[in-house]
Amino acid sequence: MKSLKDIADIIKKEDYFYILTHQSPDGDTLGSAAALCKALQKLNKHAKILCSDSIPTKYDYLFDGLKTQNFEAKFIVAVDIADTQLLGNPLFAYKDKIDLCIDHHPSNTHYAKNYFIDATAAANAEIIFDLINELNVFIDKDIANSIYTGLSTDTGCFRYSNTTSKTFRIAADLIDKDADFSMINKIMFDTKSKAKLELEKLVLQTLTFYFNNRCAVIEVTKEMLKQTNCNDSDTDGLTSLPRKIENVIAGITIKEKEPNIYKISLRTESPLNASKICQNFNGGGHSRAAGCTIEGNIDFVKNSFLAAIEKEIEEII
Amino acid sequence: MKSLKDIADIIKKEDYFYILTHQSPDGDTLGSAAALCKALQKLNKHAKILCSDSIPTKYDYLFDGLKTQNFEAKFIVAVDIADTQLLGNPLFAYKDKIDLCIDHHPSNTHYAKNYFIDATAAANAEIIFDLINELNVFIDKDIANSIYTGLSTDTGCFRYSNTTSKTFRIAADLIDKDADFSMINKIMFDTKSKAKLELEKLVLQTLTFYFNNRCAVIEVTKEMLKQTNCNDSDTDGLTSLPRKIENVIAGITIKEKEPNIYKISLRTESPLNASKICQNFNGGGHSRAAGCTIEGNIDFVKNSFLAAIEKEIEEII
Repeated sequence: MKSLKDIADIIKKEDYFYILTHQSPDGDTLGSAAALCKALQKLNKHAKILCSDSIPTKYDYLFDGLKTQNFEAKFIVAVDIADTQLLGNPLFAYKDKIDLCIDHHPSNTHYAKNYFIDATAAANAEIIFDLINELNVFIDKDIANSIYTGLSTDTGCFRYSNTTSKTFRIAADLIDKDADFSMINKIMFDTKSKAKLELEKLVLQTLTFYFNNRCAVIEVTKEMLKQTNCNDSDTDGLTSLPRKIENVIAGITIKEKEPNIYKISLRTESPLNASKICQNFNGGGHSRAAGCTIEGNIDFVKNSFLAAIEKEIEEII
Repeated sequence: MKSLKDIADIIKKEDYFYILTHQSPDGDTLGSAAALCKALQKLNKHAKILCSDSIPTKYDYLFDGLKTQNFEAKFIVAVDIADTQLLGNPLFAYKDKIDLCIDHHPSNTHYAKNYFIDATAAANAEIIFDLINELNVFIDKDIANSIYTGLSTDTGCFRYSNTTSKTFRIAADLIDKDADFSMINKIMFDTKSKAKLELEKLVLQTLTFYFNNRCAVIEVTKEMLKQTNCNDSDTDGLTSLPRKIENVIAGITIKEKEPNIYKISLRTESPLNASKICQNFNGGGHSRAAGCTIEGNIDFVKNSFLAAIEKEIEEII
């Protein structure tokens, strides 16, 4: 792996950048991309952000201060993307052409020509903060807002155990650079659409407990989304819900993607390793948060996953 | 006002401390008291914490590493107490005997012989952090946990606009001193009892919107509490729920206290003044959060309050 200084040196030599974000974009992939894009444009380079999915309107402010530029890329950067599978269909054509990957997922598959991966970073945006400093670009309010968005969304606003003293120190620097953290926190953590609340009501009706209340499961069907006029991104916050319940060490969200295809999100308490459990189903992620996709009818999917959970719980207790 | 160094010099000369916390104790008054008490004991002084109310069990860990000592106080310190009214009845006898007050409320009434008040501190525990450094006491894990508790609880885990870069930098230092922030966040912000979740499900069924979705109302009845085995303190978090809904500027929680007596909690967005609206019903509070009590049947109570809201909304829009 190259040093961050080497990465900065490579970037300095290039002029036409596409920055790829992962499908179902979150605050960290978008915040990382927006901060980097602004920094590159400040260096008078051409840069734009690509995403396979449409970007939820709540992230609109990330694009403040960005110029829209049309050009052919000569250098392709992927941010916060552990695996090319996560590029999504429209961007999948880039999978073998990625010049640089900047990521913080330990499961990163090293698909790019150059990469910088720091699994100790709570958010990918932490690496982007260091990189922008390495590039000697002044972090203005717009860049600060973008980095803060990555930091706060990937740490549940500094709540999750992945947060480090470095995360806090970067946040302090960003506030000193006038990041509008109060506005961002309101949008990201303190606003719920009516539709989303209706969805939550339906989903809560499915809440079921297993293994002596150590495991809680919720289900989200396409019918629920339709009924409440919600889209896929409205389900984001739901995945943290079951794990919040007292004594629960495995919180599971089973989301219907297509008929007989279910995406499972797992949130765990120590020592239960979420990534290890999801690897049984060709998934992965972090030790406290991971996911996988299982095909079959809902009962088969649920029972298969619960069996894997039970095995792990038995091993650790 | 004395400097923090002067305050430290005064403290160094004393040996027998009572540390008073405010009634209905929260994480900041208790965290401040616990950190200071541990620091004083490390200086081989006698110190103990007093509170008028019993301390909720979730704060048990704050008392880790504290020695229980029986002695007569010669120096009385109040932490995070804006006014002697907030001492509560059992501690009210100390109201004219307080030697030192350390506080961050701008409304502090300067009731003590010596005081140090910093209204720019997001949490009182920030001042305690500086004071302990001024006392040259090493901040160990137990002290770090106590200060972190004050910081995180008074800022909604670094979400509220009172948070500053200093808050973040102190949090970073505390994490480096091994503060168990993940455990503390889990207890304070990320744990919901099964009973409370059941209550939330019932309460959400009552959610109603008014005035073009600018106003959202939820109701909590005694029957709901009984049915879910919840007590009054389980309703705490509910009051912030309606205001979180997109476009809502007035979030109302109507809680049945006794038959035909209802407590109303109002949360507003700028420019709607919650305190002003509640004053119509002999209530009060802050501009964004206020409350009042109205007698009558539920329909009368709701309609009376909604009429007051409508009048204000019409005035500002």
